[in-house]
Amino acid sequence: MKYDVIIIGAGPAGLSAALYSARGGLKTAIFEKAMVGGQITVTDNVENYPGFEDGISGFDLTAKMKTQAERFGAEFISEEITAIGLEGLCKVIETNSGEYRAKSLIICTGAHPRRLNVPGEERLTGRGVSYCATCDGALYRDKVVAVIGGGDSAIEEGQFLTRFAKKVIVIHRRDELRAQKIIQDRAFNNPKIEFIWDTVVQEIHGDQRIEKLELVNRKSKKITMLPIDGVFIYVGILPNNGLLESRIELDNAGFVLTDENMQTNVPGIYAAGDIRHTVLRQVVTATSDGAVAAWSAEKWIIENYDALEVESAKQ
Amino acid sequence: MKYDVIIIGAGPAGLSAALYSARGGLKTAIFEKAMVGGQITVTDNVENYPGFEDGISGFDLTAKMKTQAERFGAEFISEEITAIGLEGLCKVIETNSGEYRAKSLIICTGAHPRRLNVPGEERLTGRGVSYCATCDGALYRDKVVAVIGGGDSAIEEGQFLTRFAKKVIVIHRRDELRAQKIIQDRAFNNPKIEFIWDTVVQEIHGDQRIEKLELVNRKSKKITMLPIDGVFIYVGILPNNGLLESRIELDNAGFVLTDENMQTNVPGIYAAGDIRHTVLRQVVTATSDGAVAAWSAEKWIIENYDALEVESAKQ
Repeated sequence: MKYDVIIIGAGPAGLSAALYSARGGLKTAIFEKAMVGGQITVTDNVENYPGFEDGISGFDLTAKMKTQAERFGAEFISEEITAIGLEGLCKVIETNSGEYRAKSLIICTGAHPRRLNVPGEERLTGRGVSYCATCDGALYRDKVVAVIGGGDSAIEEGQFLTRFAKKVIVIHRRDELRAQKIIQDRAFNNPKIEFIWDTVVQEIHGDQRIEKLELVNRKSKKITMLPIDGVFIYVGILPNNGLLESRIELDNAGFVLTDENMQTNVPGIYAAGDIRHTVLRQVVTATSDGAVAAWSAEKWIIENYDALEVESAKQ
Repeated sequence: MKYDVIIIGAGPAGLSAALYSARGGLKTAIFEKAMVGGQITVTDNVENYPGFEDGISGFDLTAKMKTQAERFGAEFISEEITAIGLEGLCKVIETNSGEYRAKSLIICTGAHPRRLNVPGEERLTGRGVSYCATCDGALYRDKVVAVIGGGDSAIEEGQFLTRFAKKVIVIHRRDELRAQKIIQDRAFNNPKIEFIWDTVVQEIHGDQRIEKLELVNRKSKKITMLPIDGVFIYVGILPNNGLLESRIELDNAGFVLTDENMQTNVPGIYAAGDIRHTVLRQVVTATSDGAVAAWSAEKWIIENYDALEVESAKQ
């Protein structure tokens, strides 16, 4: 099958790219191997996507985006992509069911927080276990929360959480932080922030919601139980870049480098959303990226129309 | 009055910045001299803001964004700002009613298309008169539309409109285009595009909707009537930068230059949405800008907390 634009990944970035591409009159396919919606589908109430004054579940929000993209003709394909190749200007997508060709490709494969990989973590995600203070901090007014990690993100987000929480306990596996000095100093001077050093979480307990953290001191091996209202885990974010061939330029952490047009280093290949090297990862930034990527792809196809038609005719 | 963040302009960028700032626990005010919602309020049906599968009017969409920001404590102030000043790190906003101070400022004053300033233009805007092919092109399937202008935007958007319209008539005041050679060539080779040279629109006629353009040839002075289904006016976009003092860096066209954090050249002052030097101006890109700007302002306030408190105490 031949398309103008193939989008890989149907989270908010991919769904927005599909809407803009299909509504722009381009023949558009969007591939998703798992569930449409991406990471945000696990969020019960997205309060900060502009336009939904009472909030909306991540599941419902992305379902609406899917319907909207389909309305303009975007085709959803539930196949797992096994390889991405190039033949001249054309992009070739392989799945277990066949081969698809496109003039332009938009990569929206997303990212995922690094997990602690301890019992209870997955089950209680969205029920007191969070990976995003910007998203969920406001839910913990006058509560006691823990932050796991010792880097810039962990400490800055801990600082941020003190706006809401009455106490923030930073739990770090080492006896000193990795965060920048200025960020550390401010945290040490904040009376709402406490530290537990040399300690890791070995289980998260709770029935319907989180209740306590089971901690172990790495030096003394002593185990303690810490009652808690919520835990924010900041031990890294990992790009879903398994499919990206070596010729697409990534940053040191594996995220795709683009310019402001969402253009990667390969002509006609764009990236949008969490997979991209970017400053803030939110639904609204992902949808914006997707719109810009589709608009750029459309311009690129217009500009390379003749060469693309010649190649397409050969296949 | 003292705020953490003052936002100037309550279009989608400002409304999203207000939501993120207020929800982030910052004391937030948003100033709008005219109607909340900005340019998009005149659009009957916004089809391409992700999440509204049947479309939504610009008026309703921005009303929802306002309610959402207010829910988290953003204060809306209907006063016209007369001056913006700086006192050290603090920003001072003057209106006819008084003076407001903020640690950080987010400029969301928007832009507006340059008008032809001919009779009928304003009255028929949104009823056949459009300034945005990306927004409205899909409404003109198998119709005949005119494009006014001869620059890159006019010709590229004319090309784009041929995906929908059966005929696109480019009307230009000169006898040659200003657009790049490659863009011109492609337009000349497109059988759906026709040109009318040396000609300007002197009136737009129509009752409930556009019906015809009254054209005058600048050389022969001959007047003709052109029946038409829609007209797209691409004679420039103008930034609403009247308030910006000389120290904020602008591009040659008067749009605010920022980095990817929406930071201007002045510490603690950010810009978001159409006022910004950017590649694509849509509701979804504006709301994303607003979220990033608020997030950046929040980080900046945390990083400069001590210095800001000292200054604030002096006032």
